[in-house]
Amino acid sequence: MKPRGPQKQDPLTKLIRPQVRRLEAYVPGEQPTTPGLIKLNTNENPYPPAPAVLQAVKAAVDERLRRYPNPAADGLRARLAQLHGCAPENLIIGNGSDELLALATRAFVEPENAVRANPQGVARSTVQYFDPSYSLYPVLADIHGARRNPVLLPDDFSLPTPTQLRRQLQWDFRAALTFITTPNAPSGHGYATAALDALCAAQKGVVVLDEAYADFAPENALELAFKHPHVLVSRTFSKAYSLCFQRVGYFVGSPELIGALHKIRDSYNVNGLGQIAAEATLGHLDYYRRNFREIIATREALRKELTALEFEVHPSAANFLLVRPPRFSAERWQRELRAEKVLVRWFDPPHLRSLLRVTIGSPGEVEALLRAVKKILS
Amino acid sequence: MKPRGPQKQDPLTKLIRPQVRRLEAYVPGEQPTTPGLIKLNTNENPYPPAPAVLQAVKAAVDERLRRYPNPAADGLRARLAQLHGCAPENLIIGNGSDELLALATRAFVEPENAVRANPQGVARSTVQYFDPSYSLYPVLADIHGARRNPVLLPDDFSLPTPTQLRRQLQWDFRAALTFITTPNAPSGHGYATAALDALCAAQKGVVVLDEAYADFAPENALELAFKHPHVLVSRTFSKAYSLCFQRVGYFVGSPELIGALHKIRDSYNVNGLGQIAAEATLGHLDYYRRNFREIIATREALRKELTALEFEVHPSAANFLLVRPPRFSAERWQRELRAEKVLVRWFDPPHLRSLLRVTIGSPGEVEALLRAVKKILS
Repeated sequence: MKPRGPQKQDPLTKLIRPQVRRLEAYVPGEQPTTPGLIKLNTNENPYPPAPAVLQAVKAAVDERLRRYPNPAADGLRARLAQLHGCAPENLIIGNGSDELLALATRAFVEPENAVRANPQGVARSTVQYFDPSYSLYPVLADIHGARRNPVLLPDDFSLPTPTQLRRQLQWDFRAALTFITTPNAPSGHGYATAALDALCAAQKGVVVLDEAYADFAPENALELAFKHPHVLVSRTFSKAYSLCFQRVGYFVGSPELIGALHKIRDSYNVNGLGQIAAEATLGHLDYYRRNFREIIATREALRKELTALEFEVHPSAANFLLVRPPRFSAERWQRELRAEKVLVRWFDPPHLRSLLRVTIGSPGEVEALLRAVKKILS
Repeated sequence: MKPRGPQKQDPLTKLIRPQVRRLEAYVPGEQPTTPGLIKLNTNENPYPPAPAVLQAVKAAVDERLRRYPNPAADGLRARLAQLHGCAPENLIIGNGSDELLALATRAFVEPENAVRANPQGVARSTVQYFDPSYSLYPVLADIHGARRNPVLLPDDFSLPTPTQLRRQLQWDFRAALTFITTPNAPSGHGYATAALDALCAAQKGVVVLDEAYADFAPENALELAFKHPHVLVSRTFSKAYSLCFQRVGYFVGSPELIGALHKIRDSYNVNGLGQIAAEATLGHLDYYRRNFREIIATREALRKELTALEFEVHPSAANFLLVRPPRFSAERWQRELRAEKVLVRWFDPPHLRSLLRVTIGSPGEVEALLRAVKKILS
């Protein structure tokens, strides 16, 4: 059916804020409906949640659905506080970590048009991040009417030191909000906690260390959320804990910054079954840790195989590999792999056009990928 | 454990935007843990979801939890489009309708400090609503840094006509965003569609008709979302469809305004099991319609009984009654009812202090309430 209501008209678009009007319409990611497709394009976990987690969620599907969930996910925060050795006041749960990244933008960054007259306005309205990193950050800046400050990573995607950033001049040590994806996505490059510590110490504004992939890395920087009061660490149950569907992420940090985020979140922002799934997950971490080891072993095996096939493979501390394929363009590789029923991710920006990002699937999925690669090469 | 991290310090609070610093800390609603309490304080449905809905959700608790949910809830939008005779482009699904009310504020209203220099700035930065109505609206205005314009309803909570509002002078026909709770909460007063139509026609900015309780009313104003391109109708699966726990609400309106909201929502804002629960609900509307009739019958019976006990009872088109209790103060009534294990809602603001809001429970719960009332009176 065609949309109902009057045709597009000028007076109507005037009702929408100019900064929202200017935004590009959101394009949802590919939802493949072809059966048999091997989905190595969105960094989902190849393994299901622990059986006991599925059981806990199923057991909760009863008349309680008519009730409001716990508004602050108190049960889950208590469990996480135990796990991380902190207080519930150090924690906020979000409808996925995406919600929390958006809340941070709104809590800590002034829209540009609100601070134009202020000499410190530029820093106060700056959302800063490395390029490449999670592609959501510029979107959040645009939605909020903030200034983007993307700073190019070196070719090997390593973390610049404060001294290098000072020389480079574009980096803003007073930026209201700095997002650092660690391990970096889409490169998979892992960052040493000591290096992140030095950067956090040099930074005057709020820093969010976005650790969506930290469970696949040899180290994480959670302690920096307790060491530096202006640093927040972002975690999610989506990828490592196989709960994308349920939308549960969290931030760890000082009660002051966490408290500011609580003030502006929706009252019941985390659905009840998501809270139950995440709580149950924390009771079965051994299952997930086995999966992490499995995924890391598969990653390293795939890295070796692809290297032997003349792919340039970036070292990865995440559940994906960024590779430069041989012979044909990355775009063509993506297309040809798709014809072989294997989905991988190709990025359009000029400095990423020659690369593909491949999610680590199950050993069987990775074998299918390698078969497809060899077929295309032959 | 005490919160970890350095003590509260001035430099830290400076990292938080002044308008966020000024907000009151969020106080979550009462979560009674005493067993046997009868909860008539939050307008939840006394009846569980349809058995087939619980079954559909249970059946979906499997390995799919590791996947991202459909980003725009396409399946649910298609079903709702069929139900309401419109296109999916007329619809946006939210993490509860609360999320959509917040998105509307951010899409259609300028923060005050962004438009100070602009002569039309006052209207562009105004969030307008009747007092009393849903207590979230002023919170959303404050979070966004917008101007609140609460306009007092007459003593009987009836909807003023545009002519009355023009005379009254405080109402702003150019307000960027006007929220109208219909049926009104907390009074339960139902509004005629013709009266809402006249008000919408007079309004220059965006109007959200918040129909959280419309399923318990003799009429609803959905058609106004198709008649007026600047009008959005808000609905929720929480109350009428017993899915508070799952967080699913939606807006209906012109593709232009709906499209603006899509641009600024989180990419995966609605959890997957919530989408499945809501879709299954639409396949069993007869079950829910029987419940609505049940609840309305219980409401009218309770109204008669309370009136006989010398409560002043406002006529209601919702699943609750606003009452002025006899003999003691409303605050004392709330306290004494709580001692009898019955929770009802008492509101602090001066013009509501003498009133109680009672959710319509099951016939058994309502009987328990009446027994408690008689005990307190005797």
